[in-house]
Amino acid sequence: MCLSRFLICGLFLLCFFSNLKSQETDDAIFIKNIYNKVLQDGSAYQWLNHLTTQIGGRLSGSPQAAEAVDYTRAMLDSLGLDSVWLQPCEVPHWVRGEKEEVHILIPAANINLPALALGNSVATPPSGITAEIIEVRSLDEVEKLGAKNIKGKIVFFNRPMDPTQIRTFNAYGGAVDQRVNGPSEAARYGAVATLVRSMTTLHDDHPHTGVMVNKEGINKIPAVAISTNAAEMLHKMLLEKKVTIYMKTNCQTLDPVQSYNVIGEIKGSTYPDEIILVGGHLDSWDVGQGAHDDGAGCVHAMEVIRTLKELNYQPKRTLRCVLFMNEENGLAGGLAYAEAANKKGEMHLAAVESDAGGFTPRGFSCDAENEVFADLYLKLQQWLPLLEPYGLMLTKGGSGADISPLKSQRGLLVGFRPDSQRYFDYHHTATDTFEAVNQRELELGAASITALIYLIDKHGL
Amino acid sequence: MCLSRFLICGLFLLCFFSNLKSQETDDAIFIKNIYNKVLQDGSAYQWLNHLTTQIGGRLSGSPQAAEAVDYTRAMLDSLGLDSVWLQPCEVPHWVRGEKEEVHILIPAANINLPALALGNSVATPPSGITAEIIEVRSLDEVEKLGAKNIKGKIVFFNRPMDPTQIRTFNAYGGAVDQRVNGPSEAARYGAVATLVRSMTTLHDDHPHTGVMVNKEGINKIPAVAISTNAAEMLHKMLLEKKVTIYMKTNCQTLDPVQSYNVIGEIKGSTYPDEIILVGGHLDSWDVGQGAHDDGAGCVHAMEVIRTLKELNYQPKRTLRCVLFMNEENGLAGGLAYAEAANKKGEMHLAAVESDAGGFTPRGFSCDAENEVFADLYLKLQQWLPLLEPYGLMLTKGGSGADISPLKSQRGLLVGFRPDSQRYFDYHHTATDTFEAVNQRELELGAASITALIYLIDKHGL
Repeated sequence: MCLSRFLICGLFLLCFFSNLKSQETDDAIFIKNIYNKVLQDGSAYQWLNHLTTQIGGRLSGSPQAAEAVDYTRAMLDSLGLDSVWLQPCEVPHWVRGEKEEVHILIPAANINLPALALGNSVATPPSGITAEIIEVRSLDEVEKLGAKNIKGKIVFFNRPMDPTQIRTFNAYGGAVDQRVNGPSEAARYGAVATLVRSMTTLHDDHPHTGVMVNKEGINKIPAVAISTNAAEMLHKMLLEKKVTIYMKTNCQTLDPVQSYNVIGEIKGSTYPDEIILVGGHLDSWDVGQGAHDDGAGCVHAMEVIRTLKELNYQPKRTLRCVLFMNEENGLAGGLAYAEAANKKGEMHLAAVESDAGGFTPRGFSCDAENEVFADLYLKLQQWLPLLEPYGLMLTKGGSGADISPLKSQRGLLVGFRPDSQRYFDYHHTATDTFEAVNQRELELGAASITALIYLIDKHGL
Repeated sequence: MCLSRFLICGLFLLCFFSNLKSQETDDAIFIKNIYNKVLQDGSAYQWLNHLTTQIGGRLSGSPQAAEAVDYTRAMLDSLGLDSVWLQPCEVPHWVRGEKEEVHILIPAANINLPALALGNSVATPPSGITAEIIEVRSLDEVEKLGAKNIKGKIVFFNRPMDPTQIRTFNAYGGAVDQRVNGPSEAARYGAVATLVRSMTTLHDDHPHTGVMVNKEGINKIPAVAISTNAAEMLHKMLLEKKVTIYMKTNCQTLDPVQSYNVIGEIKGSTYPDEIILVGGHLDSWDVGQGAHDDGAGCVHAMEVIRTLKELNYQPKRTLRCVLFMNEENGLAGGLAYAEAANKKGEMHLAAVESDAGGFTPRGFSCDAENEVFADLYLKLQQWLPLLEPYGLMLTKGGSGADISPLKSQRGLLVGFRPDSQRYFDYHHTATDTFEAVNQRELELGAASITALIYLIDKHGL
C-alpha cells in the first residue's frame, strides 16, 4: 500500500471511529435527558393515581374497565400524537357476585377462611357446598388418587411457591398450574369443588385470585383461592383429622362485552412502516386497584410516548403505545391486535411490554423467532454500555402475554423486567393499590423503557 | 518435549482445571445452600421485628440503645459461638426533649411546619426564637450574603436532593452539607437559628433529622429540619413577601454515657489471626424504629454468623459479627473498635458493613488502601460468576462509616449495596419502621453478604 492510500485509509478509520464515539456520546446524553425528564417532570405517577384510586379494579367487561378506556384515551389525546384510536375487541364478562364464603365446620364454631373465587369459577348451588377436604400437592397426585379418593370431595391444592427461587416469577411458574388447571383436573375425578393456596411467598391473610381454565367436556366446579395463612392452618388440621368445609361462591359468566384496546401513535419520519410498540394491559382483577398489575405497565407505556414527544424527538419509525384489554382472563385484546396487524400487513420491528410491576428496573428479557434471535440479541448487546449505568441488563426469555401473538412477524419481543421481590405480595390481591407503588421506582421503569425504545428507533435492529 | 512429559503435563493441567471446576461447583452449591437456608429458615426478620417494634428508636445513650445491646447480646449468645462480648465505648447523650415547634407567623393564624430538631442542636431560649427567614441554596451563598444580610435572621437551607441522580446516595451526598455544616456556617455570620429542607426526594410531610456539627469557636444556634412540603410552601411564600417564623427547640446535651459494641465470634480453624468482620450499627435516631437504618444491617450481620453456624461451616479464618454503637452522632463505637484492634495488633483481612437498608441486594462497594486495592479487587472479580446469578455486582467506592477506621490495616473494606431507590423515603424519619422492610428483600441481603463472607473465608484474599 502506498503512503497516500495508507493515510487516506487511516483518515477514514479515524473518522469512522470518532463518529462512532460521538454517536455513543449523543446517545448517552439523550438517554440522560430522558431520565432527567421523567424523574423531574413525569406524568406516570399522577396517571397511575387516577387509574387506581379514582377508577380502581378494572376487570374486563366492568364499568371500571370502560372508564379506564375513556380516561387513557383522553390522556393520550392530550399529548398531541399523530393519531389516537380505540381498537374493538369482545371480552368475556365474568363477575364475582356477592362475596364468597369458605369456612371450616367444627363442632363448637365455624372458622372463616379468607377466600376469593378464581376468575371463570362457577357459582356453588345457592345453598353452598359442604364436603370433606382432600389435600394434594400437585395435579399428578390428583391423577394418582383417582376417582375413588377424590369423588364427592373438595380438592385442596397446597403446594407453596418455592421461596428459594431468586426470581419470583420462576416460583410462580412452578406453582400456578394448580390454580389454572387444578380445578378441571379435580373435576375430572369427581371433585365437587377446589381450594387453591394463594400464589404468593408471603405468609398473610390476603387471598390472591387469578384465572382458572374450565376444560372442554369436564364438569365445571367452583374454585376458590384461600390465603397462605389459611392454607397452613388447614394443612395442620388435616394432619390430625378429617375436615369438612362449607363454601359458597356467587360468580356468573355474563354475555361478552364490547371493549377496546387504546392506541396512540407517532408516525415514523423515515421508516413509517416499521412499527415499535410499547404496551401494558389496561384490565386488572376486580379486587385491589390493579396498580402494579398492570396500571404501572400502562402508565409506563404512555410515559414513553409523552417523554419522547416532550423532548421533541422525531422518531424515524412509527412509535405506538398500546394499552391492551383483557390480558387477565382471555387475552382478547392481544389477539385482536395481532389479527388486525397481520391483516393490514403491518410489521412490528419490536414490541416491548411492561407487565411485571412498577419496581426498580433491572433490565429486559428478549425473545424472537429462533432464526432471527441471535442477530437481534447481538444488536441489543452493543447498547449495554449505554444501559448498564442505569442498572439495566439483558436476558433471554419470555416477553409479555399481549405482545406474544406478534412473534410470527419475526421482530424483537421484549419484556420489561423490574425487581421481582415484592411483586407476588400484591399480585391479584386487595393490596395491589396505589400506595404499594413507589414513585421513583415507577418513574425509573418508564425512563428505562423509553431509553430502549429510543435506541431501537434511532439505530434500527 | 517427549511424549511422556507431554502427557504428564497434559494430565496435570487436566487435573488442575477439573479441580478448579469442581471447586467452582462446590462454591456454587454452598452459596445456593446459604440462600435456601436464609430464605426458608431465616431469623433476620424476627430479630428485626423485636429490635424495631419491641425496642424502637435507639439513640446513643438512650434506654432503648442499652436494651438493644442486651437483646442482641442475648441473641448472639444463643447461637453457640466461640465467644460473645461487649466492648465499652463512651457515647454522647443528646436528647430531643419536648417536641419542637416551628410555625410561620402570619396575621390571621399561625401555620405549623412539620419539624424535627437536628442531632446536636441546642435549645432555643424557653420563649423560643422569632425572626425573619432568609432562604439560601448553599453554604457558599451564606458566605456571599455575609453578616449584613444574615445577622439576626433564621437561615433556611433549601437546596433539594437532585432527583435525577440514579443512585440516591449521590443525591444525598450532594445536599447533606447543608444539614451537617449549614448551622455553624450560618452562625458564623450571625444567624440566630437554621431551618434545613429534609434530605429526601419525596414530597411529603415527614421531617428527616440527622446529625449537625457545631464547629469549635462558633456560636451554637438551634437547627431544625422541616418536611419537603413545608420547605416548598415556605419557598413560595418567600417569593412574595418577607416571612417571620417562631421556633422552639428543647434539646439538651447531657453527660456522656457508657455504652457498648456487641461482638460475637467464631474462631478460625486454620488462620485464626485473619479476622473477617461483618457489621451494622445498633444505634439509630430517636424518631421511627431504626428499621432500615440500621436495624437491617444489624440483623444482616447476625444472620451471616447464624447461617454459617447452622450450615455447620467451619471457618478457616476468624469470623466476627460487630454491632457498632453510635454511628449516627459520633462514631464512638467504630473508633473504639479500631483503637482496640490496633492495640491488640489484630489484622482485619476484610470488613463488610451493611448500612444502606434492607432492600433487594445489588452488590458490594469495595475500598482499600491504594497500594493493595487493585490486587484485592481483582481477586473479588474472579468470584463474579458465583455472585451474578443473585443479581450482585462489584463497584469501587466507599464502604461504611464504622469500619472505615480499619482501612489502615490494609485489608479489604466492603459496603453492602442494596437497591437505593426507597432508602431516603425512610432515612432518619418517623416512617423508618418494621412495616417498611420487606421480608424477602431483607433476607436476600443477609444471604448475599453471607455468600461473600464465605468466599473470602474459603479462598482468602
